[in-house]
Amino acid sequence: MPETDWGALARHWLDRLAACSELGPGVTRLPFTPEHRAALAVLTELMEQAGLAVRLDDAGTLIGRLAGPVGAPALLMGSHQDSVREGGAYDGIMGVVLPVLALTKLRQESVTLPFTVEIMAFADEEGVRFPTALMGPRVLTGTFDMAALNMRDRDGITLRRAMEDFGLNPDTLPGLKLDPAQVLGWVEIHLEQGPVLEAATQDIGIVTSICGIERHMVTLTGQAAHAGTMPMQLRCDALAGAAELTLAVETLARKTKSLLATVGALQVRPGVVNAIPGEVAMTLEIRAPDDTTREEAGAALTQAARDIARRRGLGLDISRSYAQPATPCSPGLIERLSQAVETGNRKGARLMASGATHDTSAMASLCPVGMVFTACRDGVSHHPDEHVVDGAMLSGILTLERFLRQFQQADPAALESANQSLHSRKP
Amino acid sequence: MPETDWGALARHWLDRLAACSELGPGVTRLPFTPEHRAALAVLTELMEQAGLAVRLDDAGTLIGRLAGPVGAPALLMGSHQDSVREGGAYDGIMGVVLPVLALTKLRQESVTLPFTVEIMAFADEEGVRFPTALMGPRVLTGTFDMAALNMRDRDGITLRRAMEDFGLNPDTLPGLKLDPAQVLGWVEIHLEQGPVLEAATQDIGIVTSICGIERHMVTLTGQAAHAGTMPMQLRCDALAGAAELTLAVETLARKTKSLLATVGALQVRPGVVNAIPGEVAMTLEIRAPDDTTREEAGAALTQAARDIARRRGLGLDISRSYAQPATPCSPGLIERLSQAVETGNRKGARLMASGATHDTSAMASLCPVGMVFTACRDGVSHHPDEHVVDGAMLSGILTLERFLRQFQQADPAALESANQSLHSRKP
Repeated sequence: MPETDWGALARHWLDRLAACSELGPGVTRLPFTPEHRAALAVLTELMEQAGLAVRLDDAGTLIGRLAGPVGAPALLMGSHQDSVREGGAYDGIMGVVLPVLALTKLRQESVTLPFTVEIMAFADEEGVRFPTALMGPRVLTGTFDMAALNMRDRDGITLRRAMEDFGLNPDTLPGLKLDPAQVLGWVEIHLEQGPVLEAATQDIGIVTSICGIERHMVTLTGQAAHAGTMPMQLRCDALAGAAELTLAVETLARKTKSLLATVGALQVRPGVVNAIPGEVAMTLEIRAPDDTTREEAGAALTQAARDIARRRGLGLDISRSYAQPATPCSPGLIERLSQAVETGNRKGARLMASGATHDTSAMASLCPVGMVFTACRDGVSHHPDEHVVDGAMLSGILTLERFLRQFQQADPAALESANQSLHSRKP
Repeated sequence: MPETDWGALARHWLDRLAACSELGPGVTRLPFTPEHRAALAVLTELMEQAGLAVRLDDAGTLIGRLAGPVGAPALLMGSHQDSVREGGAYDGIMGVVLPVLALTKLRQESVTLPFTVEIMAFADEEGVRFPTALMGPRVLTGTFDMAALNMRDRDGITLRRAMEDFGLNPDTLPGLKLDPAQVLGWVEIHLEQGPVLEAATQDIGIVTSICGIERHMVTLTGQAAHAGTMPMQLRCDALAGAAELTLAVETLARKTKSLLATVGALQVRPGVVNAIPGEVAMTLEIRAPDDTTREEAGAALTQAARDIARRRGLGLDISRSYAQPATPCSPGLIERLSQAVETGNRKGARLMASGATHDTSAMASLCPVGMVFTACRDGVSHHPDEHVVDGAMLSGILTLERFLRQFQQADPAALESANQSLHSRKP
């Protein structure tokens, strides 16, 4: 078929998968549900058409295997099958479909690879049903906390029970940990979930690093008072202090390269039209592709909060509630993936950070990781309107196909070279 | 008894009245309830001890009358009997007790007045039980909307039904309108509900004007987005815009004499730690003792909101939801009340605006009005900790006593002079 039809073929499979959803707007597909089961059936059909050997592991990860030479290590690719509630048809699941189609295309052209490839569809990345996430990769990397099996969904069903009802045996999870020596690397393709590629009219971005994240809970305490009887000069207005801090957050992030900082939630007490706010609780989230930038911003904004509180006579409680370091992608994979884009006829490879967390974040403790973004219409994700155009999906398939094709020489030296370049941590 | 004991006597009555409350912290006394009934019994006892003829009108206003010469007009004094939920023991009710004690003192000293005095305890100023307020004075001034009788409290009881169960006949309310020619003026004493007098170590303030109020509902609409995937330079952050506006409100009010402006309520959507705020709804309240200052501030802040929205690419919806003009007090009453303070041995009369609305606001459509503030501990009101010290209550009683004593010459010329000075609108 003409090369351009591969984007339409991806859409065909994604449409079928989008139908594996709870009723309602968009796609709602939570782990260990009938919708999950239905999606696995579609994915199994897709993988088997590509000649992959399909199995389901006890974490609920569907794995399609294209075996390489006996004893050869495996390159792992994939993403997650689950969605948020009323989410889109691409987030996660597109990252399972596109690499299978890339393998299909290589197979049609009789290209053989010197290593095994496994395409994975993880059960749960979003953490919507249970208050845990990234279960599939954490099991593979040996970082899954078995205590999470006791977590309950909103119907009171434990994760253990949900998995057992799905036909899985959670007690075997510790045995699923992979041997790093048998893993070449991990590559995930995902929609950008932001507007950067679309604004640059580029189809494909190569991720250099997944941003580290830290979150702070900030409470400013003033003095609630009657808005008619408290003169301006005697006020301790917690909201005015919070407003200053909100602008300080924005100003610092605007002037600091690659820093993102956001006040997302803010509650005012008492929160009525005729009372001076006595207390404001707000969140501060900071993301950066390198940990130094993020940590310096956290310290600077904590100091800014202290200065504002002291100057205004407000009480301040600020604490870092969460911190997750950045995940740098493998320089070897960045280079190979970039070359794969450049050899195509698209508009070149854009190197960019990922502000969102992905399965790749968890896989990084096991092996070198790489990540490819496709452009995302209007930057919209986690919403029924989420969309990736056929052309961008085609570019994604071609990028993965060319990336794999780089290793097609089946001699041991080429494999060794690939292994070395992927495992190099130096840029 | 020694003059200083009058403050303690006021406390005795206020303690008895504070006991007329629902169970729970502070005082909760809503109109047309058993607590209201109990308070009326205590007030009746107090008024009768002062030699007043006591009656209850069909709006639930308890009126204690000291009759003057036949055909003489009446000076009206008083305040409201009701409290907010879990409020204090002074707000409103102190303004009934202190003028009765002032009359008691004049009576002990055999001072007679050339006019009738009526002390009023209005049923409802706070508007807590029913979504209407100032019922008593509005009935007297002919500005009460009879449709309010159909309003319901949170138990579904209509105002009409509550009044009827209290033994009142709401159908007669239109007939209670007073003839302005028969009213000399209205004087209310109330705690300041703010920190100004206490900060100045003054017991008494004379109100020059009750601030006008306007309220605006402001909605800023940006674009909700993932805090990790939306670059700073592409964001439309509604909360950052709201923060700028909040600071603009504070800045304008701080630099404009006698202006109060407050952002009291602010809601963020979606309001989660990892989403850029897409919408902020906030309130803006502006108060000033003169309407020009207030209206200019309203226009300036509306323009500021427009400028911020345009510069940031935010949608803006701003509308004035409420406006109430300022109520200037009568220059004649301001002068007479100030003289009454000056003739005492306290620290003189502080002229000040009232930022809060009072029964006086409604009475102003009928007759010249005057208002006296007492200092308020820590500026706290509408709270169980609300407190007025004995010394300030004593100063209040003496101020009212001396104010009335100015009219003690019973000759027609003095009364005519009083009438003229009170009705003069010129400063």
